Amino acid sequence: MAYDVVGTRPVRPDGTEKVTGRAVYGADVQLPGLLHGKVLRSPHAHARIKSIDLAPALAIPGVYAAVTAADMPKVQAEGVANLGESSIEKQYMQNMILAGEKALFHGHAIAAVAAVSPHVAEEAVKAIRVEYEVLTPVIDVLEAMKEDAPLLHEGLITKSLGKPTGKVSNVAAHMQHARGDVEAAFAASDVVVEREFRTAMVHQGYIEPQTATAQVGLDGAVTIWTSTQGAFGVRAQVAEILDLPLGKIKVVPCEIGGGFGGKIQVYMEPLAVLLSRKANRPVKLTMSRAEVFQATGPTSGSVIRAKVGATRDGVITALQAQLYYEAGAFPGSPVGAGTGVIFAPYKAENVLIDGYDVVVNRPRTSAYRAPGGTNAAFASEQVVDEVARQLGMDPIEFRLKNAVRPGDQATYGPKFGAIGLVEMLQAVKESEHYNSPLTGPNRGRGVASGFWFNGGGPSSSHISFNHDGTVNLAEGSTDIGGSRASMAMIVAEELGLPYDQVKPYVADTDSVGYTDVTGGSRTTYATGLACYNAAQEAKRQLCERAARTWECSPEEVEFMPGKGVVSKSDAGKHLTVAQVAREMNRTGGPIHAVGTVNARGQAPGFAVHIADVEIDPETGKTTILRYTAFQDVGRAIHPSYVEGQIQGGSAQGIGWALNEEYVYGSDGTLRNANLLDYRIPTALDLPMIETVLIEVPNPNHPYGVKGVGEVCIVPPAGAVANAICQATGQRFTELPMNPERVCMALLKAGSR
Amino acid sequence: MAYDVVGTRPVRPDGTEKVTGRAVYGADVQLPGLLHGKVLRSPHAHARIKSIDLAPALAIPGVYAAVTAADMPKVQAEGVANLGESSIEKQYMQNMILAGEKALFHGHAIAAVAAVSPHVAEEAVKAIRVEYEVLTPVIDVLEAMKEDAPLLHEGLITKSLGKPTGKVSNVAAHMQHARGDVEAAFAASDVVVEREFRTAMVHQGYIEPQTATAQVGLDGAVTIWTSTQGAFGVRAQVAEILDLPLGKIKVVPCEIGGGFGGKIQVYMEPLAVLLSRKANRPVKLTMSRAEVFQATGPTSGSVIRAKVGATRDGVITALQAQLYYEAGAFPGSPVGAGTGVIFAPYKAENVLIDGYDVVVNRPRTSAYRAPGGTNAAFASEQVVDEVARQLGMDPIEFRLKNAVRPGDQATYGPKFGAIGLVEMLQAVKESEHYNSPLTGPNRGRGVASGFWFNGGGPSSSHISFNHDGTVNLAEGSTDIGGSRASMAMIVAEELGLPYDQVKPYVADTDSVGYTDVTGGSRTTYATGLACYNAAQEAKRQLCERAARTWECSPEEVEFMPGKGVVSKSDAGKHLTVAQVAREMNRTGGPIHAVGTVNARGQAPGFAVHIADVEIDPETGKTTILRYTAFQDVGRAIHPSYVEGQIQGGSAQGIGWALNEEYVYGSDGTLRNANLLDYRIPTALDLPMIETVLIEVPNPNHPYGVKGVGEVCIVPPAGAVANAICQATGQRFTELPMNPERVCMALLKAGSR
Repeated sequence: MAYDVVGTRPVRPDGTEKVTGRAVYGADVQLPGLLHGKVLRSPHAHARIKSIDLAPALAIPGVYAAVTAADMPKVQAEGVANLGESSIEKQYMQNMILAGEKALFHGHAIAAVAAVSPHVAEEAVKAIRVEYEVLTPVIDVLEAMKEDAPLLHEGLITKSLGKPTGKVSNVAAHMQHARGDVEAAFAASDVVVEREFRTAMVHQGYIEPQTATAQVGLDGAVTIWTSTQGAFGVRAQVAEILDLPLGKIKVVPCEIGGGFGGKIQVYMEPLAVLLSRKANRPVKLTMSRAEVFQATGPTSGSVIRAKVGATRDGVITALQAQLYYEAGAFPGSPVGAGTGVIFAPYKAENVLIDGYDVVVNRPRTSAYRAPGGTNAAFASEQVVDEVARQLGMDPIEFRLKNAVRPGDQATYGPKFGAIGLVEMLQAVKESEHYNSPLTGPNRGRGVASGFWFNGGGPSSSHISFNHDGTVNLAEGSTDIGGSRASMAMIVAEELGLPYDQVKPYVADTDSVGYTDVTGGSRTTYATGLACYNAAQEAKRQLCERAARTWECSPEEVEFMPGKGVVSKSDAGKHLTVAQVAREMNRTGGPIHAVGTVNARGQAPGFAVHIADVEIDPETGKTTILRYTAFQDVGRAIHPSYVEGQIQGGSAQGIGWALNEEYVYGSDGTLRNANLLDYRIPTALDLPMIETVLIEVPNPNHPYGVKGVGEVCIVPPAGAVANAICQATGQRFTELPMNPERVCMALLKAGSR
Repeated sequence: MAYDVVGTRPVRPDGTEKVTGRAVYGADVQLPGLLHGKVLRSPHAHARIKSIDLAPALAIPGVYAAVTAADMPKVQAEGVANLGESSIEKQYMQNMILAGEKALFHGHAIAAVAAVSPHVAEEAVKAIRVEYEVLTPVIDVLEAMKEDAPLLHEGLITKSLGKPTGKVSNVAAHMQHARGDVEAAFAASDVVVEREFRTAMVHQGYIEPQTATAQVGLDGAVTIWTSTQGAFGVRAQVAEILDLPLGKIKVVPCEIGGGFGGKIQVYMEPLAVLLSRKANRPVKLTMSRAEVFQATGPTSGSVIRAKVGATRDGVITALQAQLYYEAGAFPGSPVGAGTGVIFAPYKAENVLIDGYDVVVNRPRTSAYRAPGGTNAAFASEQVVDEVARQLGMDPIEFRLKNAVRPGDQATYGPKFGAIGLVEMLQAVKESEHYNSPLTGPNRGRGVASGFWFNGGGPSSSHISFNHDGTVNLAEGSTDIGGSRASMAMIVAEELGLPYDQVKPYVADTDSVGYTDVTGGSRTTYATGLACYNAAQEAKRQLCERAARTWECSPEEVEFMPGKGVVSKSDAGKHLTVAQVAREMNRTGGPIHAVGTVNARGQAPGFAVHIADVEIDPETGKTTILRYTAFQDVGRAIHPSYVEGQIQGGSAQGIGWALNEEYVYGSDGTLRNANLLDYRIPTALDLPMIETVLIEVPNPNHPYGVKGVGEVCIVPPAGAVANAICQATGQRFTELPMNPERVCMALLKAGSR
């Protein structure tokens, strides 16, 4: 099918604002009488809070209010926001914002103050006196699982397969995917490879620190300005934590300087509300970079054991894994997703995957782009690679032989729909990059595949027409990667209008219907469907108005796709959208069309990456020589922004593979909470990431769209590890594969 | 019909914010890098602008930009915003913002600058050098109509009855309502009274001066924050004046500190856009009080001749009037409305009403509450009073005898629908006030009736549901007199929800469908209908969702009025709105309902006021002893806010009657541009205004609503004049009836 707008590459509507520094981010919000807040954070990784004395802070001139967990509403069993949380989960939600009886990680918020300036607030925070009883911290996931490990939560009862076990431990949950008989299958296999892997806790590394401004009226009405991936999610969390009706809260989403999953969870928002309510003034809180590292949610470090068996002709017989993920100080690691991702590209009769969500004295983890997926694929893609090597098979050939196809049952349960893994592996196999020679010493090429679920869910939009034929498009999804452009393109396509006549707009929670977060690779799919639906309703209304003009029945009028024209063909009559809009008040009033959706039928995403590396044997430094990312994108609405997503995800995955990690001291304090010591790759560290878009349309979407934003971060660590293995002959099972680790391994192996 | 919410008196949603000083008005807007603008204004009432030298202003450090009319786009014949303006009218629109070849009134904007602070901007404005050729001004409406009067516009061709006459003069237009043969009817009358009246130019007297902030992106996208009666009107005017597509402009309405018609026309908005575009920074302009008086639109001063004939048994035979209204420097006085209002309460076979729209060297007039009506009724209600006196009839009895009834043809043309004038006059006649004795010297009682058209037109709203059953209601009407409350009440009534579960919200132009201004007494009627329509659509969606839950057809489900419950009565099943909302994502996605309307079928408003006065013969000061306003309101959605409208309109009308006036010197300069010398009544000057709501429902509205905001300002000047006449025996034909004028009249009559 040919499109007029879909598939083109127009400039994004927010582009000029952003590159000229004009766009309003959360920290740019200014209000009359605005106070500035600061947070007191725990210097200890694990400590009982015996007392907090706010008086010295409140005595400082210019200090308006101070709050602790005691200012939170008492937890009740039933939440107002219907998040379905139990009372213990609600208590956790509150204590993630302000520590309760215990500080559970270095940087855990203890108290917050609001003052006339950030400097006075900082002084006040320092004046607060806290008496701690320091406890032994537990930082490592396997240590935390030991019988005699220090307990973070006395009330945390382990759930297994969704049911409480009655046992109190640091293991919040155990989950499992099981099928067939792995024991027997491994026994009958010609080749079996099993290895244990470790990955470090890493941060999303968004540029903009968390910030929130709140204003609470004397009637209790709350307005929050924030940079978030989902204004409605902020509203629901604040409502839940502070026991407020949803209708009392308005969240205004500002522009966002990156999120990658890390800007779904609230941190400053409830503090700003509590402080504003007490101070009777608007209050803004903005994190420092150190606070971002210490106290926002990175993604889990993990220990993963993976085992793959195969017949000598290259057919996988059994897949087994145990995944242990650090949740941080409260339950909620992405281990569940990890258990789904780990072997998803492979067909197997016998599967046994166990996952464990384990609390440790680190910041509570949050989502990070395909959460839990990179850890999992780092393990599985190396073991698969090793099996292929042992069988003497080309790694792509081996993957092709075992690739899941539409109709196959996934390792994690459901049957796949229209997936494009085979088409993609075929494209990799035939690609110039894969077939190009890679010569020279210390060089290697690795491949890895990756999987991501891709989400759907509820989204809303509405389209209102202006008298000159331009249209305003309100939608509820935060625009991170260019989604305003995609939404406008979909509406322009449907209404037959030029792209620049559609003005997209990210609305606040009062101005658009409920919309889930920008996350889960759902935005262009689900919110795009809401926009598509709104456009269909708009076309219906346009036809109705034309019918009124022509004094005929609406059934006699049709919208001509691609032309922006309403037509009554038997009478040779037609009107442009602009002509109908011009007369709208005379034909019944303003034209305004809503589209909502609870999008189902997303298609999972698959990616295959090729990494060429060179190792400097002197320093252990890995240089990425060439990198190509293949991805089944269904249909690229705006190919440049799809490519941008893939390049961004690849770059983040490479950083995770080679450099990034949280470094903790034995006392549980974070030692590298800054961008100098926590090393994110820059443009100078990477080659241009090449991208190949494979378009296997999703039949459940009118254009065939699939989510594209996350799966691209899943393969890099595995691909780079496989390349380093080829270059060095060494299998690296621990992330990051930084110069120190590579150097040490080469020394140990005597190859240096 | 019984209502649960309609007719109650809940607190307005914006109440707390406003009384605690938390509400954000236009001048409170803060943006990063904000510049401040000031305007250079003409010191002359009439002058040719020979040159403007901006260089000295631009040389001052901290000055970023300066603009004159030369920065406006060249006027093209066809407007982009489809306002249907001719090129000469577009030229006028531009020159109302910045003077073109001539300065046409004292205070006319000549140039504007943007600087780093208001003080620097002020200094810069003073540095601009303008060379003027001073011309003779014409200030008085009758002077301006003379053959040899100085011409304001060389290209202004008088239109008569809608057609150009070919004659160039200061008379922009002549209009007429004619019926029967007035000459013959007057000749056959038993009583004929004819008088000439003069009313002064007066200002709306809103508390908040005009202010606007604009930000123009490098891509040309414009955002405007302003206090306005209509965000869409601002958008259309700015689009027209600056030749921009509507889709490029977003107008964010801030809270408004009064408007009364004066905040429909733009003043600062186009200047802020021009300056922001040049300076590449956001720019805010806020008027001083003097600028508000000098350069925003007051309402017309006028000269009116009115003549009424009657038979000796009290039947009106003929009605005649000539109305001459000052338009100010550009055409557009409300004389057309004045010709409609002047005799509207009266039935007559013979009518001849002529109106003249005349330009003079004063600020261009704008709408002011029932524009042109108070002037007209001041004249007609005194002449009618005098006829009744001459006939020895009670003035209410005389009005009852001649009152228009449903089906009668109005003096201005159309047939009346469901009007309640007779019911109201009956209520006045039977009222305690009218039947109470008024004794003592220098005291008098007067009555007057008043009429207003009441408007309809396009409005939009949308309702989105939250998971806890609260709902957000977005609407496009600026809330001046409590309309947020009325809208929320309508939706609460329809959805069977408590009032405080509906959160109303005045949306910006991107976030709601097109909505006409808050003016013309249209808001509760038209936007209320849009909200009503949205609620009907919401109920339809709620039923559909319940049907999905119950797996039945939507036709089997019904919404139970008043209960907030969706029911399948044959199966004894029901769900509350909150229960349906809680499950909305699972039953198809967010629930979001739009309502739009081009409201027709408004019913005109009638009011009758009784004023008791006492004159101090020493000072000429008039004290209002008691004042009761009767008004047919159709149906009061929120009676307190209806009463508030009536009290406000009455107070303004009394100020107009007794004190307010623009005082010009012979050189055409305004001498009293401040609130000390321009005397608006305070709470100390007035008794509590009593109100009587007569509810004669409008059959074209589901609740019977009629517009209420304007007609209340029409009778006061006439009622007070009739009361003063009774107290003093003197007929006052000139406004204001201030102490000086009363004193002089008493002296002249020898009664002092």
